[in-house]
Amino acid sequence: MKPLVITPLEGLPLIQEGDNLVSLIQESLKRKNLDLLEGDILVLAQKIVSKAEGRRVFLESVNPSKAAKELAAKIEKDPRLVQLILDESAEVLRARPGLIVVEHRLGFVSANAGIDHSNVDEREGWVLLLPKDPDASADAMRTRFEEAGGAHIGVLIIDSHGRAWREGIVGVAIGVSGLPGVVDLRGRPDLFGRELRATTVGAADELAAAASIVMGQAGEGCPAVHVRGFPYPLREGKLAELLRPKELDTFR
Amino acid sequence: MKPLVITPLEGLPLIQEGDNLVSLIQESLKRKNLDLLEGDILVLAQKIVSKAEGRRVFLESVNPSKAAKELAAKIEKDPRLVQLILDESAEVLRARPGLIVVEHRLGFVSANAGIDHSNVDEREGWVLLLPKDPDASADAMRTRFEEAGGAHIGVLIIDSHGRAWREGIVGVAIGVSGLPGVVDLRGRPDLFGRELRATTVGAADELAAAASIVMGQAGEGCPAVHVRGFPYPLREGKLAELLRPKELDTFR
Repeated sequence: MKPLVITPLEGLPLIQEGDNLVSLIQESLKRKNLDLLEGDILVLAQKIVSKAEGRRVFLESVNPSKAAKELAAKIEKDPRLVQLILDESAEVLRARPGLIVVEHRLGFVSANAGIDHSNVDEREGWVLLLPKDPDASADAMRTRFEEAGGAHIGVLIIDSHGRAWREGIVGVAIGVSGLPGVVDLRGRPDLFGRELRATTVGAADELAAAASIVMGQAGEGCPAVHVRGFPYPLREGKLAELLRPKELDTFR
Repeated sequence: MKPLVITPLEGLPLIQEGDNLVSLIQESLKRKNLDLLEGDILVLAQKIVSKAEGRRVFLESVNPSKAAKELAAKIEKDPRLVQLILDESAEVLRARPGLIVVEHRLGFVSANAGIDHSNVDEREGWVLLLPKDPDASADAMRTRFEEAGGAHIGVLIIDSHGRAWREGIVGVAIGVSGLPGVVDLRGRPDLFGRELRATTVGAADELAAAASIVMGQAGEGCPAVHVRGFPYPLREGKLAELLRPKELDTFR
């Protein structure tokens, strides 16, 4: 078995709307003397994808509704930000001072609908929404990487989420292309030939967490990493594999 | 920045009670020509630690209580297994057919109190409990590795847990020694000099997930990995950093 190697792709410029992320990452790979080989995976922080896609919103432009104002008073946040959170959400699960947990329109549960305050712009007053369709964003980039290089690769877009019962945020997948979201090992024999039970692995989330270690969280400027040695076979994949259907969720 | 490299330590024998895990891993490192350098981390699957510590229980030896029998009927599990789950738990959070979610006596929330069915013994009827005190197990091993090699390293013991809202199990830390459980980045400047907010990173859990990718879940026989390039400074750490205090938990 080979090691798993996660290489930071430093030196990307601050990303602006319209930037060609694929070209910028290709240049970064070149500086590292890294080719894209069969089975390699590129992991990108949500932040640079959202910026390139122009998902910035100027808070001044938001007109909060009565519902947003009421919720904002309760949780002690800017009503305009709360309006954006509601716009990006399917359902509010928990709201108390300082905390709003929602089901995002993309299907996952997260704090503040993934709306990001930091590292957005020198000027105050901008916030960043998640990409409109992160699976599609990952698909589009993968197509361009594969057309340029020939090898089948995976592209993963990640964000950092809190967990229900544990402290600290961890990297999670929000857009998946060309790799499994979940790997189903049920039915495979264990070491003694007995069938493994109830073993579906959140492989794309594990990789998101791994990549997040290398990206760092403090804006060190490394929002893209290259992965070699991911041991599960690549295949078409998508975020939805990782989302528990609401009716099976006993923790809302 | 250096890459994060996670190397599988294959070739460990099937672990038996009383086995010297430290020696076995040292031999495995030698076969890989890997030294333990300053800042390296060894990640071990809970399974081999529990086995070496003799945490196997023969189900025949368990005498289920009335409460265990009633719960077992409700969730359609073996009453003796349910008794062990209750013995290992502080509180039952959810119970329905096929699913029992508890607060483990070690403080984390998990399914089946982490009691493991597969890969335990050729004979049927054994199950494996988690180590009695995984932080202490990790501490003891780290001391022996450091005495042998001289370099400061980390030792992490991991298991795989389900998540509240997402499909697929992922690696999580259950025993931490010599590395941070959580890294607190609050107060550090972001790219534009603004203060980062609410950013504590579950660094040991991210590393557990990363290591879990390399270990695999299907009993491929690689329950130990070597990590180089973990970017956060090593320090004393413990599981408790990763556990949300019950009174702050809104999802029970």
